[in-house]
Amino acid sequence: MTTARKPGRRPGDPEVTKRAILAAAREVFGEVGFERATMRAIARRADVDPALIHHHFGPKQRLFAAAHELPSNPEALIGSVAMLPRDEVAEAVVRVYVQVLGAKTSPLLSLIRAATTEESAARMLREYIDSILIENAHKLCPYPDAKLRVTLMGSSMIGVVFALRILSLDELTSRSEEDLVAVLAPVADRYLNAPDLTKA
Amino acid sequence: MTTARKPGRRPGDPEVTKRAILAAAREVFGEVGFERATMRAIARRADVDPALIHHHFGPKQRLFAAAHELPSNPEALIGSVAMLPRDEVAEAVVRVYVQVLGAKTSPLLSLIRAATTEESAARMLREYIDSILIENAHKLCPYPDAKLRVTLMGSSMIGVVFALRILSLDELTSRSEEDLVAVLAPVADRYLNAPDLTKA
Repeated sequence: MTTARKPGRRPGDPEVTKRAILAAAREVFGEVGFERATMRAIARRADVDPALIHHHFGPKQRLFAAAHELPSNPEALIGSVAMLPRDEVAEAVVRVYVQVLGAKTSPLLSLIRAATTEESAARMLREYIDSILIENAHKLCPYPDAKLRVTLMGSSMIGVVFALRILSLDELTSRSEEDLVAVLAPVADRYLNAPDLTKA
Repeated sequence: MTTARKPGRRPGDPEVTKRAILAAAREVFGEVGFERATMRAIARRADVDPALIHHHFGPKQRLFAAAHELPSNPEALIGSVAMLPRDEVAEAVVRVYVQVLGAKTSPLLSLIRAATTEESAARMLREYIDSILIENAHKLCPYPDAKLRVTLMGSSMIGVVFALRILSLDELTSRSEEDLVAVLAPVADRYLNAPDLTKA
């Protein structure tokens, strides 16, 4: 695989072009964060026309998702989860976390690793979480403090992924994905649906 | 502060000697992990007699705790938390997590950062968590699956610290320590005391 720069738009194999766009996107997001990264800068880095990026990947959030192998349309995913009966929402969210974040070779896991040592990566992850999960918190949770509740739920899931994949704690690595979903879903449900978070 | 090696036991200021021992301990734990680190190797690195380390810091677990500014006697801390009424145990544990792990300049936070990128640091943290928290899980929780429950509780706390101090998510950084303890304690209590983790 080559990423050598040539002047003008890259002709030829669209798969090669798409890989070059994704590599350029990872670089630019990593350097300046999610908010400040522009489609124009990514296009320049990949040596393609910005319209071509939009054609292949859609808007910036979807490009970010594709570049980091996240669910390809996170807003649509949240939308479809939000349409489930209310008592099934938490389990569906937990399943996405365990399957996507918990995969042994998840690029998102690389992003978490990078975020712990580089402020630019931490900012990128924070801005992405804000724009996708926190901004849509009210779709997953009916309470006025939905943003806090979704943040707490997401944080506890990140901790489980950390303990499972970075610390490799035996008590977690010895369980199946389904076992983990079964014990984590009621806690996620509590964060989303308990009338008062401070009461047992 | 100097860490230059001199032959024979270091004379003079005991505070200088203690700092040299702690620095040597952090190095040796970081290189070979908690289990394989010996008092003898740490003494050699610090150029002191092993008996002097024991005199200043006690056994290996307490030396590790001192070197990383953890609560100085974690087993005693768990023992005293375990003597609380059962419905107060979770809140006490959460308070330790938020205050110790959640401190802005916590050396344990540095250890978490290191664990994400270096397998040796991950192993060190894993072995310490195993030897302190997991081995004593039955003191905090009355159920046969106490180790899983304590692991899940600890993991979700690590996630909150990660989101608070590494990602700096607004919804958490804008709350007081006490507010965080209030919303996290019922979840910790659920992990320790709910009869069936898979039921709402």
